[in-house]
Amino acid sequence: MNFNEWTRAVLARTEAALDARLPSAEIEPRRLHDAMRYTTLGGGKRVRPLLVHAAGLLTGASPQALDAAAAAIEMIHVYSLVHDDMPAMDDDSMRRGKPTVHVQYDEATALLVGDALQSQAFIALSEAPVAAARKAALLRELALASGSLGMAGGQAIDLASVGVALDRVSLEKMHRMKTGALLRAAVRMGALCGDDAPESLDAGAAAASIGKTDGDAGGAAVADQVDARTLAAGIERYSAAVGLAFQVVDDILDVTADSATLGKTAGKDEKDNKPTYVSLLGLDEARALARQLQADAHAALAPFGERAERLAQLADLVVERAN
Amino acid sequence: MNFNEWTRAVLARTEAALDARLPSAEIEPRRLHDAMRYTTLGGGKRVRPLLVHAAGLLTGASPQALDAAAAAIEMIHVYSLVHDDMPAMDDDSMRRGKPTVHVQYDEATALLVGDALQSQAFIALSEAPVAAARKAALLRELALASGSLGMAGGQAIDLASVGVALDRVSLEKMHRMKTGALLRAAVRMGALCGDDAPESLDAGAAAASIGKTDGDAGGAAVADQVDARTLAAGIERYSAAVGLAFQVVDDILDVTADSATLGKTAGKDEKDNKPTYVSLLGLDEARALARQLQADAHAALAPFGERAERLAQLADLVVERAN
Repeated sequence: MNFNEWTRAVLARTEAALDARLPSAEIEPRRLHDAMRYTTLGGGKRVRPLLVHAAGLLTGASPQALDAAAAAIEMIHVYSLVHDDMPAMDDDSMRRGKPTVHVQYDEATALLVGDALQSQAFIALSEAPVAAARKAALLRELALASGSLGMAGGQAIDLASVGVALDRVSLEKMHRMKTGALLRAAVRMGALCGDDAPESLDAGAAAASIGKTDGDAGGAAVADQVDARTLAAGIERYSAAVGLAFQVVDDILDVTADSATLGKTAGKDEKDNKPTYVSLLGLDEARALARQLQADAHAALAPFGERAERLAQLADLVVERAN
Repeated sequence: MNFNEWTRAVLARTEAALDARLPSAEIEPRRLHDAMRYTTLGGGKRVRPLLVHAAGLLTGASPQALDAAAAAIEMIHVYSLVHDDMPAMDDDSMRRGKPTVHVQYDEATALLVGDALQSQAFIALSEAPVAAARKAALLRELALASGSLGMAGGQAIDLASVGVALDRVSLEKMHRMKTGALLRAAVRMGALCGDDAPESLDAGAAAASIGKTDGDAGGAAVADQVDARTLAAGIERYSAAVGLAFQVVDDILDVTADSATLGKTAGKDEKDNKPTYVSLLGLDEARALARQLQADAHAALAPFGERAERLAQLADLVVERAN
């Protein structure tokens, strides 16, 4: 299977996993369920589900466990977009090429859609076909990445920074929380789904070791070991590079792509007077930074051999995407 | 310890448990953390934490485990109030005797406070000092009670029912979701925290049995058994009665108490043309219903003997409260 076939397969199974985990629009309250499905299904780049499935290959995770983790993370991501688009926040009317929820339905529904999608993400996790200890670890990853020290906190800093001349350190900190935390959680949760993973990726707890099988030049399988500390460190470095690259490229696309390609309003950062990597570094230097981060992501995966092939290709996709 | 001393002790440890589980207002983003603390600490009746601790007495749960569950449920409750008070929903300016979050801070902050409190609830659960299997069961209870088939779904039905002549069946269904689901989860989660509880309270899974020690008339301890099915059924009946009683009394207080006593705007249901038990049944019949539900809650606790004393007293508190 080549990379394009693999991404198509993951996107199809993610769509099915989300569909199966969202209440039917025939169940009361119908308008709420209809809106939850409207905003979650049928669109999106699904970067986080792709990262979940790619990271699961590092540790031999089952596709079914990865589906649950991927659906949960994507629901958190979608809820954040719904709330972010509301008039009290970014006040955007277009998302993924469709009217945003508060435009298509109403503000109260948008508020409740976001709230219910966050709960639904944790419902999805609670049903993941993994041992209880792994479920507890997944819960912790997702909750921490979503909360005030992760995504929601990043949103708060972002809001407070409109019209403020953030320096590069502050800008990076904001993005590490706002988008980086959930991208990092996607990689970590994917890896944690596998039986070869330690029960925690936190330093100190990472005493176990995982098995890794590589095809070598002679064609024979060589079984070797990547210890848990190496796994955690590699994931950390990869996530940091890809998370930041994602944002830098977002900022580049905001000035170079049109709204139809983006599926959302282009040129919005400049209009809103938001600090971006392009406004801070200029377009050429922002592009150079994205390429540098792409290389760093590749370097981080070196210890994992062929098992990390999809993660490497995803780093390329993040940097080279058109929308 | 009499009931008043017990409630004071639970309220004090709940305040401490919440304080310890909310990020400091000295940590960035400070405004968000400040608002999370503003709305969560120092007020509220803490009905759900009281139910958690009382239910934990049924199964010998540790106070520390109950603190985690109580804090998690209260955070979910508080987040729902913050979002419910926003202009897009009930547009209320006063809550627990203080300006609501969107008034004291701003709408975007209120939105993010609610979002982050929901995440924080699941962070708190992830840190509960219980075995992983119990943590997974607690996760499932809280997520289901919060989502579109529980609290958030009840809000959606409530919103859609303004100005609509709901019949009693529809009104009860709405309240069973909007407030009943979380009250029920409080009782179930408290019980699930105990080592004497089965790992699940769902029918079919309830094959284990719990030990119960009663003081009898002769003064000697008689060890007997309440099987898990009896536990689940008793909790179910108690929760349904107390949950509904809570709402009936809320509706009564909305017309009989003043805003200062309530800590929120009185008379709001009628002004908003919302269906209530008082508008449906009249004041006298609503009061009779509350007393009948109180009796039903007591009857539900009969199998549990003295271990259920606090739950019985809480049913009285819910019905006889002044705010």
